[in-house]
Amino acid sequence: MTIITETTNVKKQAMAAQKAAKTLTLLSTEQKNEALHIIADTLIENSQYILDANAKDLERGKEKGFDAAFMDRLALTEDRIKDFANGLRDVSDLEDPTKNIVSDWTLENGLQVQKVTVPLGVIGMIYEARPNVTVDATGLALKSGNAIVLKGGSNAITSNKAIVDVMHSALEKTDIPKDAVQFINTTAREATQELFTMKEHIDVLIPRGGGALINAVVNNATVPVLETGVGNCHIYIDKEADIEKALNILINAKTDRPAVCNAAETVIIHEDWFNKHKDTFLTKMEEFNITLHGDDTLVKAVPSAKKAEEEDWANEYLSLDLAVRVVGSLEEAADHIDQYGTKHSEAIITENAETARMFMLLVDAAALYHNASTRFTDGGALGFGAEIGISTQKLHARGPMGLPALTTVKYLMHGTGQVR
Amino acid sequence: MTIITETTNVKKQAMAAQKAAKTLTLLSTEQKNEALHIIADTLIENSQYILDANAKDLERGKEKGFDAAFMDRLALTEDRIKDFANGLRDVSDLEDPTKNIVSDWTLENGLQVQKVTVPLGVIGMIYEARPNVTVDATGLALKSGNAIVLKGGSNAITSNKAIVDVMHSALEKTDIPKDAVQFINTTAREATQELFTMKEHIDVLIPRGGGALINAVVNNATVPVLETGVGNCHIYIDKEADIEKALNILINAKTDRPAVCNAAETVIIHEDWFNKHKDTFLTKMEEFNITLHGDDTLVKAVPSAKKAEEEDWANEYLSLDLAVRVVGSLEEAADHIDQYGTKHSEAIITENAETARMFMLLVDAAALYHNASTRFTDGGALGFGAEIGISTQKLHARGPMGLPALTTVKYLMHGTGQVR
Repeated sequence: MTIITETTNVKKQAMAAQKAAKTLTLLSTEQKNEALHIIADTLIENSQYILDANAKDLERGKEKGFDAAFMDRLALTEDRIKDFANGLRDVSDLEDPTKNIVSDWTLENGLQVQKVTVPLGVIGMIYEARPNVTVDATGLALKSGNAIVLKGGSNAITSNKAIVDVMHSALEKTDIPKDAVQFINTTAREATQELFTMKEHIDVLIPRGGGALINAVVNNATVPVLETGVGNCHIYIDKEADIEKALNILINAKTDRPAVCNAAETVIIHEDWFNKHKDTFLTKMEEFNITLHGDDTLVKAVPSAKKAEEEDWANEYLSLDLAVRVVGSLEEAADHIDQYGTKHSEAIITENAETARMFMLLVDAAALYHNASTRFTDGGALGFGAEIGISTQKLHARGPMGLPALTTVKYLMHGTGQVR
Repeated sequence: MTIITETTNVKKQAMAAQKAAKTLTLLSTEQKNEALHIIADTLIENSQYILDANAKDLERGKEKGFDAAFMDRLALTEDRIKDFANGLRDVSDLEDPTKNIVSDWTLENGLQVQKVTVPLGVIGMIYEARPNVTVDATGLALKSGNAIVLKGGSNAITSNKAIVDVMHSALEKTDIPKDAVQFINTTAREATQELFTMKEHIDVLIPRGGGALINAVVNNATVPVLETGVGNCHIYIDKEADIEKALNILINAKTDRPAVCNAAETVIIHEDWFNKHKDTFLTKMEEFNITLHGDDTLVKAVPSAKKAEEEDWANEYLSLDLAVRVVGSLEEAADHIDQYGTKHSEAIITENAETARMFMLLVDAAALYHNASTRFTDGGALGFGAEIGISTQKLHARGPMGLPALTTVKYLMHGTGQVR
């Protein structure tokens, strides 16, 4: 019984979102921006309501014994809610990605063709226990003229529900229909499963979270998916690498924020460079408390280092651990990255421009760096404004996805009776 | 035993294609164009070899009692093989869609960012018994720097195998590795199933064929899919439609080539127009031998007309049948198209520009026509050159897909040691 009721509700919600998406298509940029400001103000006005709800999630989280990092992501404060509001205001300042004429031409018979950007329609957002995604994703969806169906992690459900309540009350003061933001208020797995296959009513699913969540969506969804985020990123130190650049970049990519997807997880070192700079390299790693998991060559040089197992090469450590592989050539490095990389961000450190060019041709990833840290793969750092995620797939959008990734096109043809 | 052997072969073939794709990335436009010309010449030189193989498929087809249309699509002639060759030469004349700098900018810290088009990698082409797809898809894949894995319909397997044999012998005279073109030489369903899930080695699946084939791919694939082609297209005749334009366009969209996806399947008529022009409309339909399947209003006006059942509205007739619905408003027409359309091509006939604008905003489809026939949704007609299919999905590519649809992007970052 429960399953059937919930199933029906999810479908009803998706259909309501689809209907609201039609209205959104008709709104001006100004109407959408005004709504974002009203939502921002309303969130701040209702901070206490949200914090009270968040306290319940935190209490449950404590009982369940979640770790500090998890609790930190879950926890809201007045300042964090102010950040949510400022994020929405920033999105209102971004260019409207819809109604752009990508190209236009006239056929010989006089038929006028316009290729115009339009919203995708309904976005299904599936994410973990991070209440910020509830606001960020809604802001980006609405600005790009899309309705959104939100399915957040069960451990943040009370916070998310409160945030959506507040956003709904805000929407009543705007031209955007309340139904444009749908919140799946259940922890039932069946609801998620239904979202996966609701092709008629949901245009795209965007999973945000760890590898397990993303794989669950990719493997079970018939709705098209914009895959985001898992980053097993490599730094390749070429034989012609400058030692200062190499170590600075590696330390930055590994230690600046180890838990993010654009952090480095493996360093691949050309044997010539390794033999020459081994001692300096090892001292630097020790200085930054980096735990090495090395291949045979490294372990021979540093008997105290851990031996890398097969899983180390594939692992997104998200910690101060680093896998180390010593290779004999660029091709060997590229093959390693092909085998274990997640097509996110890959860097080469070398003073040889031709070697860098070959690396960029051979390695298949969203972002390729020559003498710079992988940490720049980020919508904010690259100047895209807010991002809905970082795409590690090749279709539709690759790398950091800003507002344009939430649009598609229509061909609009104006004629005077043309036939073939 | 059989299954295991075949499974292993498919994976081996996909991996070989992936390796060949690396080499393709390194080739110049001239090297790719030269290869296309060599393949074209070699196909013509070996016409008889291909025709002999085709004779066997035709014989088997006759035994199986396939209809005339099926046999016609399967049958090859010297002229058709010449067409294949000319198609490849035409593709060589198209602009190379890779290595284009989409945008480039420099961050404040001096990091140079380039967004550059690159091949997708390995394309999996799944199609029915049309040997022309074997050549057309290969030409488009190679020109855009992609390797291709071909899985054609079992009823054309002997013809397809012969075509690929000839293409392979041609490739030996080019800089493109033979492995860039893989032919799945089995009719085993397991092979197809394996292609569906080979995410590590195949970057995109493109199904070409009827609704059943396309649905099988969409519902079973974990590899991203570029969905093509089912077209349940509508012509909406508004109350302010010019009678001559309306009838010319409808007749063209229905009768010019009824079996193609951009043909019209349903006409939706505003009741005011219907009441005024009913007789002329019906005379015209009779003149062109169009069989009407009407709603209550139509059947009342034409007692001899068939009554439309629910399935008529959803049907892609691909024949001289036409469903007829009479409505009271634009919104009603748009709702009908929402419910039954396939988001391919939809037309409105009206002299009122504002009504046309609303139709184009409200109706969700790849191509929207005002006073023109839906038949123009075609890569050739729109000036894209050859097309790999017509996308009816919203992600990555929408409408006719030319060479750019077979590319993705890489961000290339050139630094001097930048860190965050």
